[in-house]
Amino acid sequence: MSKYEEKTLETKPIFNGRIIALQVDDVVLPDGQQAKREIVKHPGAVALIPVTVEGKIILVRQFRKALERTIIEIPAGRIEPGEDPKLTAIRELEEETGLGTKEITYLQTFATSPGFADEIIHLYVAKELYPIDNPAEGDEDEFIDVLEVTIEEAEKMVAKGEIYDAKTAFAVLYAKHELKN
Amino acid sequence: MSKYEEKTLETKPIFNGRIIALQVDDVVLPDGQQAKREIVKHPGAVALIPVTVEGKIILVRQFRKALERTIIEIPAGRIEPGEDPKLTAIRELEEETGLGTKEITYLQTFATSPGFADEIIHLYVAKELYPIDNPAEGDEDEFIDVLEVTIEEAEKMVAKGEIYDAKTAFAVLYAKHELKN
Repeated sequence: MSKYEEKTLETKPIFNGRIIALQVDDVVLPDGQQAKREIVKHPGAVALIPVTVEGKIILVRQFRKALERTIIEIPAGRIEPGEDPKLTAIRELEEETGLGTKEITYLQTFATSPGFADEIIHLYVAKELYPIDNPAEGDEDEFIDVLEVTIEEAEKMVAKGEIYDAKTAFAVLYAKHELKN
Repeated sequence: MSKYEEKTLETKPIFNGRIIALQVDDVVLPDGQQAKREIVKHPGAVALIPVTVEGKIILVRQFRKALERTIIEIPAGRIEPGEDPKLTAIRELEEETGLGTKEITYLQTFATSPGFADEIIHLYVAKELYPIDNPAEGDEDEFIDVLEVTIEEAEKMVAKGEIYDAKTAFAVLYAKHELKN
């Protein structure tokens, strides 16, 4: 129980979609006043930093409709209902890059947009990568290019705005400073 | 024009709230198939890494209703319509911490949830901090504690899960490795 906790008086469901849901909660603030909170519900996701034996990282390039632009990210995807996040990470790696991993390590979990969404991302590092024959295909509405880049190249992509999302910006800094081969 | 661009056939507005809006777009995929995209529209935000002369960073602790928990973050806030993001950063620093800054530097912009939202965050570093007499107050529905921590303390907060959002995880790594006093 936090001293600043906001008690819910009523939850009004607005939308229940294929990926996200939206609700508006009436809450009581710590000072007794009332406020409304617009909240996006998301099933949660994983992302992973795939590292090659040469210390390069594997990235994917895809069009993101919400941003109306193509951006470069680390592989990531939504957790299916009941799925172990580590298995989600292994599955997304295969679907998006055609690679398997013999060494996958949990790193950190973070919320992406705590101001309005409950989405959390579990982040992993994947090493000892190998190509999979006939890899499973991902979502039929995903179109993806795979890139293998050095840390220096990734930093240039950040500087040029091609790497443009928080999890990947974190991943580049992490790979640069904290990753031991 | 990206080769993977998704052309919008129709946009269906679902919700228009105080902070976010929600729409569902019918799109044409690169292979000619159609798909639906659930998209949250957000006005955009800023966040900043306030650094003291001793190299400590200033963090804020607040309850986040979307996550139903209290988390620790770098100061951040939404951009008001027409507001210069750098002025948003200076305003949020004052409102959330009571501090001013004589040196604020733009660092990077990133999307927080490119899979379903257009929210972007402009990140700044603020130095030469000073206390403001009678600082402006922030949103009346925000209840915030201010913390001043060393990088080592911030890393412990990450390990314990108290620091739990992407922008702050990035900020801690950045402060540890890239920040020159």
